[in-house]
Amino acid sequence: MTSTRSERIDDRLQQIEESRWFQGSVIFIIVLSALTVGAKTYELPDLVEHLLPALDFGITLFFLIEILFRFAACPRKSRFLLNGWNLFDTLVVIGSLAPLENADAVLVGRLLRVFRVLRLVSVVPQLRFLINALLKAIPRMGYIALLMFIIFYIYGAAGSIFFARINPVLWGDISISMLTLFRVATFEDWTDVMYETMAVYPVSWLFYLTFIFLTAFVFLNMMVGTILDVMTEEHARESRQEAHDERADMAARLERIEAQLETLTTKLDRR
Amino acid sequence: MTSTRSERIDDRLQQIEESRWFQGSVIFIIVLSALTVGAKTYELPDLVEHLLPALDFGITLFFLIEILFRFAACPRKSRFLLNGWNLFDTLVVIGSLAPLENADAVLVGRLLRVFRVLRLVSVVPQLRFLINALLKAIPRMGYIALLMFIIFYIYGAAGSIFFARINPVLWGDISISMLTLFRVATFEDWTDVMYETMAVYPVSWLFYLTFIFLTAFVFLNMMVGTILDVMTEEHARESRQEAHDERADMAARLERIEAQLETLTTKLDRR
Amino acid sequence: MTSTRSERIDDRLQQIEESRWFQGSVIFIIVLSALTVGAKTYELPDLVEHLLPALDFGITLFFLIEILFRFAACPRKSRFLLNGWNLFDTLVVIGSLAPLENADAVLVGRLLRVFRVLRLVSVVPQLRFLINALLKAIPRMGYIALLMFIIFYIYGAAGSIFFARINPVLWGDISISMLTLFRVATFEDWTDVMYETMAVYPVSWLFYLTFIFLTAFVFLNMMVGTILDVMTEEHARESRQEAHDERADMAARLERIEAQLETLTTKLDRR
Amino acid sequence: MTSTRSERIDDRLQQIEESRWFQGSVIFIIVLSALTVGAKTYELPDLVEHLLPALDFGITLFFLIEILFRFAACPRKSRFLLNGWNLFDTLVVIGSLAPLENADAVLVGRLLRVFRVLRLVSVVPQLRFLINALLKAIPRMGYIALLMFIIFYIYGAAGSIFFARINPVLWGDISISMLTLFRVATFEDWTDVMYETMAVYPVSWLFYLTFIFLTAFVFLNMMVGTILDVMTEEHARESRQEAHDERADMAARLERIEAQLETLTTKLDRR
Repeated sequence: MTSTRSERIDDRLQQIEESRWFQGSVIFIIVLSALTVGAKTYELPDLVEHLLPALDFGITLFFLIEILFRFAACPRKSRFLLNGWNLFDTLVVIGSLAPLENADAVLVGRLLRVFRVLRLVSVVPQLRFLINALLKAIPRMGYIALLMFIIFYIYGAAGSIFFARINPVLWGDISISMLTLFRVATFEDWTDVMYETMAVYPVSWLFYLTFIFLTAFVFLNMMVGTILDVMTEEHARESRQEAHDERADMAARLERIEAQLETLTTKLDRR
Repeated sequence: MTSTRSERIDDRLQQIEESRWFQGSVIFIIVLSALTVGAKTYELPDLVEHLLPALDFGITLFFLIEILFRFAACPRKSRFLLNGWNLFDTLVVIGSLAPLENADAVLVGRLLRVFRVLRLVSVVPQLRFLINALLKAIPRMGYIALLMFIIFYIYGAAGSIFFARINPVLWGDISISMLTLFRVATFEDWTDVMYETMAVYPVSWLFYLTFIFLTAFVFLNMMVGTILDVMTEEHARESRQEAHDERADMAARLERIEAQLETLTTKLDRR
Repeated sequence: MTSTRSERIDDRLQQIEESRWFQGSVIFIIVLSALTVGAKTYELPDLVEHLLPALDFGITLFFLIEILFRFAACPRKSRFLLNGWNLFDTLVVIGSLAPLENADAVLVGRLLRVFRVLRLVSVVPQLRFLINALLKAIPRMGYIALLMFIIFYIYGAAGSIFFARINPVLWGDISISMLTLFRVATFEDWTDVMYETMAVYPVSWLFYLTFIFLTAFVFLNMMVGTILDVMTEEHARESRQEAHDERADMAARLERIEAQLETLTTKLDRR
Repeated sequence: MTSTRSERIDDRLQQIEESRWFQGSVIFIIVLSALTVGAKTYELPDLVEHLLPALDFGITLFFLIEILFRFAACPRKSRFLLNGWNLFDTLVVIGSLAPLENADAVLVGRLLRVFRVLRLVSVVPQLRFLINALLKAIPRMGYIALLMFIIFYIYGAAGSIFFARINPVLWGDISISMLTLFRVATFEDWTDVMYETMAVYPVSWLFYLTFIFLTAFVFLNMMVGTILDVMTEEHARESRQEAHDERADMAARLERIEAQLETLTTKLDRR
């Protein structure tokens, strides 16, 4: 029967995919790909310069074959791209199919090849786990980020209204102002910005200090809190589970005692 | 009966107020208001420049009607302004009634319109929750802030006494000194400040190092601690509640066993 | 009897000392003292300039009387100075007895008056509590600080050995090198320092990066950990106490059940 | 018997090694060694300058004798170097045997002497404990560090591709770019770097902001989390142990009750 045969092939493919040497060689090629990307940023001897395009072609081909292979090994082919990591890998491989010869697109083509390094994240399970943990923390941080954005927007608008005529390079419009405020939030030469506006508005230090207190101190701490939250939660669940198990054990014992007592009472009653 | 009728109207108003599309349209208008505030900081084509005042008038009118509507929908009208968020909204709306034409007040008028963005905080429940959590943490941080202020005051006074003649721009009087110290606490070009005074007082590095250790290291960490405190407390309460529930369950079981035993004893005694 | 009388006076004095208005007036005078210290850093009108010495004299007198009063109210007079806070207050008061007229000592005299602001810490109980919590954390941090110092010393010596001839202002001897390293640890223009030495030793970025990783990242985090430790410990103790109480309650119940069962068994045996 | 005699000598040596005065004198010599290393970075009077080599020779000899002594006192001589701390001490001592006279190697020789300060870590138990705790945290941080490196590599490659022609000093090749990115991650004059590239690519602020968000904010917090993890784990284990002990106590009680009940039932059955 053909279906059994194709199933057997599927199994075979999956076995190959999950094998140590297959994973290892994929990681090796990704690292090689990363090294060629890095090497291109140096002055290279002519010989290497001529070899690199061939190497790049080989790596691109390998990735193309690997993704097709994984697609072939996938049991449910229609759902292959619904998996975020598969979609990501496919996009990266397609992206690096762009030719490198075209003079205009050469920078973009090289940039797309850079993203092949990211495939390391999708191949190494521990890194995938880390990224998942990170993505989990994002919804919690969403509203804090919105609040942060509102603060930046308000201070940015106020800064642009009052300081635009003092230094249009820093406060010209609201988006430039918000970039300047981000700079202030990272404490990067923020006093230079402040002294400039204090020359016109002597009380403008209040603008900066309230902004710094609101953002850097209070909110960053809240973000730290959120992240710790996610991490300690995992821990707490574990230890709670343990405590729960012990208590369940004790509850079972108590139930047994109750049953024994009931038997005793019945026996006494019967006599 | 009139009273019943007005009650029915109140109910109707409240239903409208709590409806999805009402909330949605309020958020939409706030965002629109924020965008016009931001847009004004750019060079705009003449047509848009002429449209903005009309749009601003419309938004102001909308906010005025919305606040009156919410006042009408409020069951206890005399307590409307006692709710912090209502008071805040009312002040923002009244503030943006200031005319934009007056040349002198134009900056202030525009600033007041900026605060309308803050209404997003009072309308979106999750942001309101965040702000409440933040406000809760303030009393705990109060004494740490006071201690911090004392340290700044002492170092500010000492700095002003010794360094005022070296650089009056940085150490002229105690308030300027405290601003300079805040700069040092954020590590912003603090070595420039230090090298200047070390030229006169070679041991003044001790002044800066003790100050940095006292503020940046020790106290900031304490603040982090306080904030984490507030956050983990919530967690701890939850998990304690859970543990308590399970224990209460077990205590009930033990009581049942005691009762059974008492019955048994009585039965044995009676026979 | 005289002894009873003096005891009665002691009680009376203690009552006065602990009264609200006494504490309040002490705080008021401390704040006033702080304000005069701050005021002296400004250009003042002649009238105020003439009034300040009188005010200063009044404050010094008040503090002197207050400390004598508290000494009088102290039940065990020989142990008065063994209390850290009392010793601190006494030293501050004695320090500010130094005359302000002497031209040479005028700066020192003014500095000693600055420390009177610190008395706020010894008077307000919440601030005293904060300081105690801080002092408690110091022994734990001691060995981390020692480790930190060793790292600074080693890098300082290495920096001085290799970079002294490049820039003696930054790397002249080991103490200057350690100050420069502290600057690097605070990220304050550290790249300027690095680029300078990289011109001579191209691999010296390794010196800075390993130093930054060792100090800023790893150790600061450990300090944060220690502080959090102290804070969460308090919490943990509380919640453990609570859990313990509930468990003790259950253990008592179990004991009662055991006793009942024993009675039952004895009764059965007797019959 | 010879073996017993050598054993007795071993015991004697170990007693000496563990004695307070032996440990104390080793610490004293290490500190002295550290001071001579530090002293050499200053301009010294001729007399001291001549004494230092003799002192250095004495210290080197002391360390050599001490390590031989500890080797002699070690019960299992073949495993002496398998202990990390012993290996470390031996390497440091061998390193400082290098002669100081050779003009070329003088800097290296002085550097090797600096590492003798590190022996303080191997001698003081509390410092050894700290280092062990630190080393324990490294494997957990390993994958975070790898992820961090991937981000730096990708941004470094992208930065080098696009910005190399703008400023080859900062973005010349991928390793220089990564150093520049580390500078950006520490907020050290990062706006200067950004404004320079924004002059050519106006949207390059996106490059810096995404980079800063990815590294400084998200990942540093994750590192903090990992470290706190390690520290709180220890705590949690302790408190869990305690809770477990109490529960085991209760379980024992319940078992006793069950046994009593069984006896009761058997007795009733027999009658």
